[in-house]
Amino acid sequence: MSTNTLYEHGTLAMLMAGDMEGSITVADLLKHGDTGIGTLHGLNGEVIIVDGEVYQADETGTVNHITDSTTTLPFASVHYMESDKAIDFETCSFDVLTHKLVDLENLQNVFASVKLHGTFSHVKVRVAPKQFPPYPSLLEVTENQPVFETDNVTGTIIGYFSPELFGGLTAAGWHLHFLSDDRQFGGHILDFAGTNIKGELQIFENFEQHFPIANQAFRDHTVDLDTLKDDVAQSEGNND
Amino acid sequence: MSTNTLYEHGTLAMLMAGDMEGSITVADLLKHGDTGIGTLHGLNGEVIIVDGEVYQADETGTVNHITDSTTTLPFASVHYMESDKAIDFETCSFDVLTHKLVDLENLQNVFASVKLHGTFSHVKVRVAPKQFPPYPSLLEVTENQPVFETDNVTGTIIGYFSPELFGGLTAAGWHLHFLSDDRQFGGHILDFAGTNIKGELQIFENFEQHFPIANQAFRDHTVDLDTLKDDVAQSEGNND
Repeated sequence: MSTNTLYEHGTLAMLMAGDMEGSITVADLLKHGDTGIGTLHGLNGEVIIVDGEVYQADETGTVNHITDSTTTLPFASVHYMESDKAIDFETCSFDVLTHKLVDLENLQNVFASVKLHGTFSHVKVRVAPKQFPPYPSLLEVTENQPVFETDNVTGTIIGYFSPELFGGLTAAGWHLHFLSDDRQFGGHILDFAGTNIKGELQIFENFEQHFPIANQAFRDHTVDLDTLKDDVAQSEGNND
Repeated sequence: MSTNTLYEHGTLAMLMAGDMEGSITVADLLKHGDTGIGTLHGLNGEVIIVDGEVYQADETGTVNHITDSTTTLPFASVHYMESDKAIDFETCSFDVLTHKLVDLENLQNVFASVKLHGTFSHVKVRVAPKQFPPYPSLLEVTENQPVFETDNVTGTIIGYFSPELFGGLTAAGWHLHFLSDDRQFGGHILDFAGTNIKGELQIFENFEQHFPIANQAFRDHTVDLDTLKDDVAQSEGNND
């Protein structure tokens, strides 16, 4: 496997259909990357993986360092950090990433990642609350989810750009998670703003989709293609 | 890379948008599998790969053995043959694969391959005719394509089942190519029927999508998501 690969375990369509059982261990996931995002078994919080260390922002607003490598995830994306290009922003926001970076770097048809670091004037995140069987859909969960906001926070954004063509199996456009340097604040980014933000852009040659083929709920779930992309966009809640 | 991986180079969406430049060599493609299907530079014919040997059915109805490993393809799917299950059919057709095999083996959410061999009472194929820049869309090409039919032909079917969720970047449902044992007849299957057909089914744990990220036409092409899936279904022309 080329190291220039974005590895995705599970699909957003599966979460949308309420298949939230953890189906890959942290140990197995980390064989495919040292950087990434995801969620734990039962849609338990927002995971961010930095330098091979796994952190979970939970629904109480606490950030936990996940050191048990048998912990499982239903859905995650990871890659090996290998910067293609330094990207520095005088001012940065979802709008800048979506309407400037995508055009400037011609990302529309490729998967890409950003890792950004700096002091952000504002960060707003949501955290998925842990669910129990029988699982609801991701959309139902995200209609009632804890939202946290903070100002003047120093930290890291890690996330992915996915082409529209792949929307539904993953989130089209940008999907970003945040972790503060002091490991006190994190989650799935709904909105952010910052100045003098520095980072790295990586464009992937390969997108490797891994399926939990032995998981019965995965094999049996039904995808409603008519509503999927709208539901994913709504559940991801990006302000762009 | 796990050997239980379906490797796809390029996307059907790209062909639909008229990006038909070869962007992977036969040599590089064969690093990812010994079995598969595809098309050559300029949408030149229908490729079938059997036991690591590459054959092209061209628009004149001739089958050519492609031995020049620098030959390029814009779009292809390959895997290493590793049978999960023997599948034998008293009678076989698109309808049997679509309405019986998919349900019986619960394929709806996974990528799978079949390799089938036997004497077919009837096989109807289309062959994409070679195009020249400025390239038309795949849909335009397939509206005027040579179609060949034959009866009582012994040969091999190789192809893939793709979940609906992945329709657009590949062909949802079954996408099958045929090659006769005497290497005189082949192409993209539009219809077939046979009795006492024996074969193998393989279910993939990984789907690896490879992008020609250095190809300008690929980076620049526009995907019309509103019409894509219908256009792909129409251009693939499966009778199911």
